[in-house]
Amino acid sequence: MSLAHAVPVKNSSSATANSDSAAMPVNLDVPDTVSPVGGVSLAGVSAGLKRDGAKDLVLVSLPPESSVAAVFTRNAYCAAPVTVAREHLGLANGGIRALLINSGGANAATGSEGVANAREHCDEVASVLGISPQQVLPFSTGVIGEQLPAKKMLQGIAAASQAMGDSAQHWLDAARGIMTTDTLPKQFSVVVQIDGRPITLSGFAKGSGMIQPNMATMLAYVFTDAAVDQTLLRECLAAVTDRSFNSITVDGDTSTNDSCVLAATGTSGVVLDRNHKQWRDFQKALDDIFIWLAQSLVRDGEGASKFITIDVKGGRSTADCRQVGLTVGNSPLVKTAFFASDANLGRIIMAIGRSGIDYLDIEELSLRLGSGNSTDGELVDVLVKGQPATNYSDEIGQAIMQSSEIVVSIDLGMGSSQWTCWACDLSHDYVSINADYRS
Amino acid sequence: MSLAHAVPVKNSSSATANSDSAAMPVNLDVPDTVSPVGGVSLAGVSAGLKRDGAKDLVLVSLPPESSVAAVFTRNAYCAAPVTVAREHLGLANGGIRALLINSGGANAATGSEGVANAREHCDEVASVLGISPQQVLPFSTGVIGEQLPAKKMLQGIAAASQAMGDSAQHWLDAARGIMTTDTLPKQFSVVVQIDGRPITLSGFAKGSGMIQPNMATMLAYVFTDAAVDQTLLRECLAAVTDRSFNSITVDGDTSTNDSCVLAATGTSGVVLDRNHKQWRDFQKALDDIFIWLAQSLVRDGEGASKFITIDVKGGRSTADCRQVGLTVGNSPLVKTAFFASDANLGRIIMAIGRSGIDYLDIEELSLRLGSGNSTDGELVDVLVKGQPATNYSDEIGQAIMQSSEIVVSIDLGMGSSQWTCWACDLSHDYVSINADYRS
Repeated sequence: MSLAHAVPVKNSSSATANSDSAAMPVNLDVPDTVSPVGGVSLAGVSAGLKRDGAKDLVLVSLPPESSVAAVFTRNAYCAAPVTVAREHLGLANGGIRALLINSGGANAATGSEGVANAREHCDEVASVLGISPQQVLPFSTGVIGEQLPAKKMLQGIAAASQAMGDSAQHWLDAARGIMTTDTLPKQFSVVVQIDGRPITLSGFAKGSGMIQPNMATMLAYVFTDAAVDQTLLRECLAAVTDRSFNSITVDGDTSTNDSCVLAATGTSGVVLDRNHKQWRDFQKALDDIFIWLAQSLVRDGEGASKFITIDVKGGRSTADCRQVGLTVGNSPLVKTAFFASDANLGRIIMAIGRSGIDYLDIEELSLRLGSGNSTDGELVDVLVKGQPATNYSDEIGQAIMQSSEIVVSIDLGMGSSQWTCWACDLSHDYVSINADYRS
Repeated sequence: MSLAHAVPVKNSSSATANSDSAAMPVNLDVPDTVSPVGGVSLAGVSAGLKRDGAKDLVLVSLPPESSVAAVFTRNAYCAAPVTVAREHLGLANGGIRALLINSGGANAATGSEGVANAREHCDEVASVLGISPQQVLPFSTGVIGEQLPAKKMLQGIAAASQAMGDSAQHWLDAARGIMTTDTLPKQFSVVVQIDGRPITLSGFAKGSGMIQPNMATMLAYVFTDAAVDQTLLRECLAAVTDRSFNSITVDGDTSTNDSCVLAATGTSGVVLDRNHKQWRDFQKALDDIFIWLAQSLVRDGEGASKFITIDVKGGRSTADCRQVGLTVGNSPLVKTAFFASDANLGRIIMAIGRSGIDYLDIEELSLRLGSGNSTDGELVDVLVKGQPATNYSDEIGQAIMQSSEIVVSIDLGMGSSQWTCWACDLSHDYVSINADYRS
């Protein structure tokens, strides 16, 4: 798998990444508009849940023929809307017809009242859209442990139902409406020609702290006008979230509210299954949009000033390689070294060694470093089979560490599996953002 | 087990912990002197390994009749001195007679040259002390991935061998010689009357980043003049490190060099075993000194402004309770909330939920909060069996969060096991210290 997945970056090396970057994502170039997906109608409005009056409530409606797959957080204390959404996914015989998403409050650790509220929100959406409550999936994000204000939610749902439409502006409003500490909305489109017709995949997602999705993702919504059977769509979603959202980390914390939805409306008339001769083209398009959205969460990670690609090979399983990659990406000491552009690379070796893989042998470990976001670029040897590389010097390492895009290439030397993860650094801004979050 | 283990704190509540505390540990009152232990001779000198000329090399000699037990890091890429020390512990028929400890360089990820250097250092110690190289245990701490300067090490060993003695000043010199980012030396003594004679336990330890010891500890050395059989001493060390060093975290990173040594010189003439009627008194004294030293690493954790006691009960095993406690103690979002004195307690619930324990149920979870460092003090209910506590308010939470000593009491409600962990917050100073470490 290539590391550089159609990732549009503005500028892949900037020596000034650390300075004056308080609210700047790392080389993240979000398209101004996305291509609407046939059959999807949506709105993003302000329900007054956020203190600053920004958009905070999103309503999405889907046509009756849609297939919808979703994955959720593995946090044992999942939020009330996750509980209700899981239940509705199992119940909705007529298919999922609407998504209700609010920012400004996570509705997690809110007890039985929180679950009752989530159900009431679904009832209200069902009422305004003329569908059944089980056809509505609710999602929330924001501070954990506070009840959502009932009146504002119901008023917001009414306002959103009036505002719905299918223009690019409606998509942008929705991308804005799910933001929390994100510095900008994250939306992306991929169009792929299948059976001679353009198939559109468009989606939006939000970060940008409490990010190490565990077998699920943060809030992310991807829609396509292809027709894909529900069971196959579910398999596609599981596979692509593994390669994308489950391979990123900002701070190692897994939210109570992580949710990712993939919906296929079928309005293009193109019916896809594994036997379709262009099935791989569709899978590639799915990879592209999911990896773009996942990387965008890292690039806009709280306080991020560096985008770090961690490529791990030589493990005995892809799971082991990912565990090593995420341990390196989560190590506070590795992350602060990246923030400081300090080639204190022994910390990377420490982190690999503490990743919990029991068959590691330092005499088989090789480590390379480069700037950019692909192992295809120039990489310098740091450690070769456990021995310090003879032509590596601190000056060489320091020069690479100045880049805002850095590749860490790890060869465990113990097997033939490979995995790629993405992470950001740990900066003063991360501490400030999270110390001030509720104030 | 009581949470407050003979822990001398200067001042257990200070509302100004965040401000102007750049290099101040949290309420840590280190005794000016410790009681020397019979038979132990030691020195701390400057070998020029640290740039500022501070003490950086420690030599300890033990009498021939000593028992010595040691535990080491479980980091898969352990440092060269750890490899050599493990080997010597298995080989030394005549018993361990000397410890050589340097700061200013970890001798980790240094390849075969690093291992050869560690052996050469042991040869030199053996030569100056008239013992065999296998009777020497080497230890190093500092930056990973750089070779130790051979000449400075050999000169330092010679200087230390000339400077050795058994006064309280010699003990303090040793405690200073092993420091890295520690803001002050950490030493402690406990004296317990056994068979009518005073048995002394004295020791020293160092932190204060890359701290989440894994089945071992950071560098810590404890000596007693009791006589304890080698096998029993090893069992004692395993049990007490679990309760102390293995239950703390500063940043979740497990060093390549963690080592903990417990030596019994026997010079008191008091012979102890499990059948001795005061065996429990000795165990209690061991608990006291180990927990004091472990807590001192947290109180002087890099950038720490809060000391957090995390008491977890209601798990199905002590290991599960510890896993929950350390996950909470490692969560960057929990730690930044403590730094900001922000009662954003939903983050604690998130962290418990993502701790990887598969049988959790939020409807059984209760959470209480208090100031101080013991669950014996006043605690307020935050969550009771999954429901927000009716008489909890954000104002009450904020008032407690102002304290520099905070207790988080978690009842998982799923079993009868209990464990206590200790952690500190994540501050701007942590980022600064680790961004600047090598500069």
